[in-house]
Amino acid sequence: MEAVILAAGLGTRMGKVTQTKPKGLIKVAGIEIVHRNVKLLSKLGIKKFIFVTNPKYKETYQKFLEKLKDSLGIDYTIVINPYPERGNGYSLYVAKTAVKEKFVLTMSDHLYEEEFLKKAITKDGLIVDRIGAYIDKSEATKVRIRNGKIEDIGKKLNHYDGFDTGFFVLTPEVFKHAEDLVQKKEVVELSEIVKNAKLPAGEVSGYFWMDVDTPEERKLAKHYLIKLSVKGTGDGWISRLINRKISTRISKYLVDYLTPNQITFLTFLFGIFSALVNFYSIPLAGVLYQISSILDGVDGEIARASTRTSKLGGYIDSVLDRYVDFAFLLALACAIRPDFFFWIVISFAIFGSVMVSYSTERYKAAFFEDVYKVVPAMKYLLGKRDERIFLTMLMCLFNQVKALFVILAVLSNLRVILTLILVWRTKRAELTL
Amino acid sequence: MEAVILAAGLGTRMGKVTQTKPKGLIKVAGIEIVHRNVKLLSKLGIKKFIFVTNPKYKETYQKFLEKLKDSLGIDYTIVINPYPERGNGYSLYVAKTAVKEKFVLTMSDHLYEEEFLKKAITKDGLIVDRIGAYIDKSEATKVRIRNGKIEDIGKKLNHYDGFDTGFFVLTPEVFKHAEDLVQKKEVVELSEIVKNAKLPAGEVSGYFWMDVDTPEERKLAKHYLIKLSVKGTGDGWISRLINRKISTRISKYLVDYLTPNQITFLTFLFGIFSALVNFYSIPLAGVLYQISSILDGVDGEIARASTRTSKLGGYIDSVLDRYVDFAFLLALACAIRPDFFFWIVISFAIFGSVMVSYSTERYKAAFFEDVYKVVPAMKYLLGKRDERIFLTMLMCLFNQVKALFVILAVLSNLRVILTLILVWRTKRAELTL
Repeated sequence: MEAVILAAGLGTRMGKVTQTKPKGLIKVAGIEIVHRNVKLLSKLGIKKFIFVTNPKYKETYQKFLEKLKDSLGIDYTIVINPYPERGNGYSLYVAKTAVKEKFVLTMSDHLYEEEFLKKAITKDGLIVDRIGAYIDKSEATKVRIRNGKIEDIGKKLNHYDGFDTGFFVLTPEVFKHAEDLVQKKEVVELSEIVKNAKLPAGEVSGYFWMDVDTPEERKLAKHYLIKLSVKGTGDGWISRLINRKISTRISKYLVDYLTPNQITFLTFLFGIFSALVNFYSIPLAGVLYQISSILDGVDGEIARASTRTSKLGGYIDSVLDRYVDFAFLLALACAIRPDFFFWIVISFAIFGSVMVSYSTERYKAAFFEDVYKVVPAMKYLLGKRDERIFLTMLMCLFNQVKALFVILAVLSNLRVILTLILVWRTKRAELTL
Repeated sequence: MEAVILAAGLGTRMGKVTQTKPKGLIKVAGIEIVHRNVKLLSKLGIKKFIFVTNPKYKETYQKFLEKLKDSLGIDYTIVINPYPERGNGYSLYVAKTAVKEKFVLTMSDHLYEEEFLKKAITKDGLIVDRIGAYIDKSEATKVRIRNGKIEDIGKKLNHYDGFDTGFFVLTPEVFKHAEDLVQKKEVVELSEIVKNAKLPAGEVSGYFWMDVDTPEERKLAKHYLIKLSVKGTGDGWISRLINRKISTRISKYLVDYLTPNQITFLTFLFGIFSALVNFYSIPLAGVLYQISSILDGVDGEIARASTRTSKLGGYIDSVLDRYVDFAFLLALACAIRPDFFFWIVISFAIFGSVMVSYSTERYKAAFFEDVYKVVPAMKYLLGKRDERIFLTMLMCLFNQVKALFVILAVLSNLRVILTLILVWRTKRAELTL
């Protein structure tokens, strides 16, 4: 499949920002809208992109797409709509010369979450969302469906079945209908072509998508993208109840300024710093350690919200986390000047806290699957990093460092043993073969 | 594809052992020959097996195959050759009634390594090995090839191109040639059918395969299978030069008596025992720890040699290894009664020794590939477990425990840092997307 992206509109409602650049090149959550869409679609196997833009934006888009071509391994064609004032239906019409096969059609100012696109490209016609969980319904374009086809479309339908997501899966046949209308009328909107062609309605409901017309919508889109970035990360209790509430706010601010890897590195430095503070004040160190645990969520959130996740980033982050935990426990241990026997407890705590991670990562390395997905009981085991760090802060604040080490020594190693037992129970069938 | 296995021969040369059971059910390296072949072929996607056996063995095979049916998820048919004395060509002929499609044909007394089978099933005709690395060439059946077809076959060819591996990929067409011969002669050997049908020759050279006719050959087969079990395990220097030389001898002995998991568990207990010995004698503990490192190879060798490898087994083994290392270092530390500052060094050594494993397993969990394969420079980094344990033994013998902890603290953490750098260099392209 190819993709046609309509980017000929002049985006007059965006205020200052679109005086210099087209709407599709505005950054939302750290990445240009068009960049996000091209990246996600190319990940789904679409490698040829046809951009319809106006003469004014031609050069800007050309430069931008040339960069994407190299980094994403895609091909692109720019088609000029010399009369953008004739409407987005006319923009689709001019794409006709470049389109060869079945294609997806979307707008340069529409954002979608990855799961939406994954489902949408398997459907046909106009993709309709029956729920519209993330949009302003009063402003949205509605559709009425009859026998699987779009019967009516518009902002002010009295009875409607769902919302126009601005995403289509079409065949070149649609150009006949576009041509009919273009010959009859000066201004042709896409919705007129949809109605005229009686396009099928493909349902993809409940996922995040929206169009960004105003600076307020741009902010809102960022808000949702950061919020969605927390989905399915397998957080512990403390993360869900406390850390994520704060880290997502920080991410919303930082996503416009820093890359995920810069944040990984800064969080690492902050964690090491929190460890050293133990020599000055243990309660303060505990609080800083908990803050570093909150900050530790930011790199991942920003990476996911801005489609910049990388396995390498995740890998480095994990190894550095182990060093932060080690540094904190060792510095805390040194600060309390333990005796011979207590160093044994400390050793168990230090070892156990790496082993919690080792035992789950080694599982993934062996089975190529997430232990939390395959062994659901794992989710209820206490002792994940967020929980251990929160406990550490509390015990540091109440000056219970020795008790903390005893708890960590027992909790972490017990968790590893339970992990082994749970994995054994789930997988032992394998051994009888 | 289906598989036909000829198991009608009476195996008179095997001595005592075949008076009670057919040759295919003799265990070689801990698993019956037929079980191995069925298991490996089913792993390659062959799920229907046709066994040709004689009336005497029928019941024994039936019982055995019924068990395999459940554990391997295969289907089987038993075809009786009422006249086993008419030769193995006649056995192939009687399979005719059960064969429906293209099939592989092999003998119940032939052993193959997995890689051989993987290649062989993609070829056609009689599989020929031009090298014959593992067989007694004077005893082997030779073949002469002309224009890709078998021109002559026999034990005493003057000029030959390779050896008959006893493995075939055939179509039901071969039965015509079998029938011709069966109608003309009383005793029909497979080699006569091969020659008569002018079978194509498919080459798979250099891999392990052999037939087991005598108790000596049974021993030799076990020797080779254990030896091959070491291939591609990514060993460090000490493993290659010392540990494997000893562990393979132990494996040869134990493969007939213990399962891989029993050995994993015993090795773990032995490792913990070696740690405790530190309180009695540090040099002795060091030697026992090195012995436990040697024993640690045995479970994997036996598992691979007897086709009983399991991800679960590997997983449990790895986690237990971490506990053995921790126990040894902690016990050794306690035995030397370190002062406050030296406990810091010990903590680094304990932490670093887990992190060496963590950093490579976390890589595999992220990238689903082996870091040693993707980053070849990793192979030359010192500090793998076998090397650390050997060093530990040496330093324990020479009473240099403090120096040992300093070296381990530096070596292991340096190795982790170098791992991060090497991975970063190899994978950073990923980040620019």
